[in-house]
Amino acid sequence: MKEFQLIQQIRQGISVSATDKLKSGVILGIGDDAAVVEVPAGFHLVAATDTLNAGIHFPAGTLPYDIAYKCLAVNLSDMAAMGAIPRWALLSLSLPEAGQQWVMSFIDGFNSLANIHGVVLIGGDTTHGPLSVSLTALGLVKPGLQLMRHGANPGDLLVVSGTVGGAARVLDLLQIEGDCKARPLLDRPVPRVELGQRLTGYASSCIDISDGLLADLGHVLEASGCGAHIVLESLPGDEILSGLENHQKWNYQLSGGDDYELLFTLSPKHRDMLTTWSSQSGVDLSVIGEIEEESGIRCKSSTGEVFDPENSGFEHFQKNHES
Amino acid sequence: MKEFQLIQQIRQGISVSATDKLKSGVILGIGDDAAVVEVPAGFHLVAATDTLNAGIHFPAGTLPYDIAYKCLAVNLSDMAAMGAIPRWALLSLSLPEAGQQWVMSFIDGFNSLANIHGVVLIGGDTTHGPLSVSLTALGLVKPGLQLMRHGANPGDLLVVSGTVGGAARVLDLLQIEGDCKARPLLDRPVPRVELGQRLTGYASSCIDISDGLLADLGHVLEASGCGAHIVLESLPGDEILSGLENHQKWNYQLSGGDDYELLFTLSPKHRDMLTTWSSQSGVDLSVIGEIEEESGIRCKSSTGEVFDPENSGFEHFQKNHES
Repeated sequence: MKEFQLIQQIRQGISVSATDKLKSGVILGIGDDAAVVEVPAGFHLVAATDTLNAGIHFPAGTLPYDIAYKCLAVNLSDMAAMGAIPRWALLSLSLPEAGQQWVMSFIDGFNSLANIHGVVLIGGDTTHGPLSVSLTALGLVKPGLQLMRHGANPGDLLVVSGTVGGAARVLDLLQIEGDCKARPLLDRPVPRVELGQRLTGYASSCIDISDGLLADLGHVLEASGCGAHIVLESLPGDEILSGLENHQKWNYQLSGGDDYELLFTLSPKHRDMLTTWSSQSGVDLSVIGEIEEESGIRCKSSTGEVFDPENSGFEHFQKNHES
Repeated sequence: MKEFQLIQQIRQGISVSATDKLKSGVILGIGDDAAVVEVPAGFHLVAATDTLNAGIHFPAGTLPYDIAYKCLAVNLSDMAAMGAIPRWALLSLSLPEAGQQWVMSFIDGFNSLANIHGVVLIGGDTTHGPLSVSLTALGLVKPGLQLMRHGANPGDLLVVSGTVGGAARVLDLLQIEGDCKARPLLDRPVPRVELGQRLTGYASSCIDISDGLLADLGHVLEASGCGAHIVLESLPGDEILSGLENHQKWNYQLSGGDDYELLFTLSPKHRDMLTTWSSQSGVDLSVIGEIEEESGIRCKSSTGEVFDPENSGFEHFQKNHES
């Protein structure tokens, strides 16, 4: 397929009705040197960018549908972690070759998630190169209401959405067994967009878990100048982790990346809100520990056993979802 | 160098003073899940993204300084083609390995151009992967004043800034001779940001020349529903093209890409503005032809000789700077 056809295919595949464009504030979409959008009065612009490279951020052989889905999901997860309303996206797609089937599947994956959140693709470029997808998400937040990494206070509850460790377990199973029926945990993370918006004005800090719970909690604690303790039994895990030894399970939950759940801190006076948010957003919320003055992270079981995960440092070059 | 050090180095290298951040409307810069900026009242947001892959958009062995410079330049050129004021940038950097010297040089190249235009890097990510730089530029334009590809009218003057064909000639010389003293024509294109802003409210259409003059003019004509003629002798060429046969020279000027000059159309009633803009922006402006009703592009010499360049189609998968 030639370049022009490829662009046409993407353009048609993600075409949005004139009404929806207007509703989304799109003045000028795909097809010019740049897009023009209207940021409504009373909002600030939120911007994040994340790249997924083949063989690094997704296994070779991942379906184009899932590649597109995941690339949008991780960026929407950044929007969620800011409490932002996602609105627009720009896509840079590098492809070794441009097959029509591949591109159609990619578009379908993109649309499947974009439509849920009303995100409009307003621009991008396609180039020849090793398979890589780079996406910029743009969203809106009311001035001063963005969720940030700093702001956690000693005594705050430490809360996580959904389950953690599942994506890392799937990745291991894929490498051992070649397939895994829980693969969507890895390929199709659910960005907690609605939850993030509900947390604005309440959560004292927030981050999404891309590099692993401890690593990302570390960012929050460093920015906030405090420490935390975690109660190991309170860590929520997908059923794919059931049957594992405690130490194995805790390793996945504390150090596994790619979960894209929200990790936030909350003054205990707002504890009652957790039930409300959980039922409104349709996602479980677990209190997994507490912020403390003393720096560092202390992971203990309810019986007092101290646990240091194997990869607590979680320092690798492969992934960085910092924006 | 580890991931964390790399990010720290980039963050420190492009650090902007608190005053400059405030002036640029940056509420929250690098270091959280996303950046937050203020789009001032009375402006729309303009967004473009472009990726440069090693060996495709720049020769292997290009200096990191020049890679960073060029990636920012091509995105600022998109801003220029819209008449926008560039304001912020997000950077996705994929690197096979992270050497400190490499990153320092990259940062220097980025800063050298960003500082000229007051562009603030507000976010991004770094990943392991084949060398690739993806940049999103964000800017501002007054509502309704953005320059677009459609809008050219029969009788309009066809105008180009600077010179064309030089970058393609340099690329050929590099391949033949291994080096070329005019290499900055290829590595460090000058985005015509100031000129673009001056054209708003005057030019009936505008595009930047990334894929070659004829290819990009083709986009304008298709969007505007008209044709054009070009007077070959009026095509401005860098001195690197002097000494070539006319046909060779015209081929470079009409089909060579990577010049990042502005190509715009202007009602003849505004012809006098060309001298003013040229002196204000410090760049030559050449009237190279005229928009006509009849579709297609007719290239003729002043003696009436018709010339069809070898690559008039200019359809390749390697490059697409459409946003």
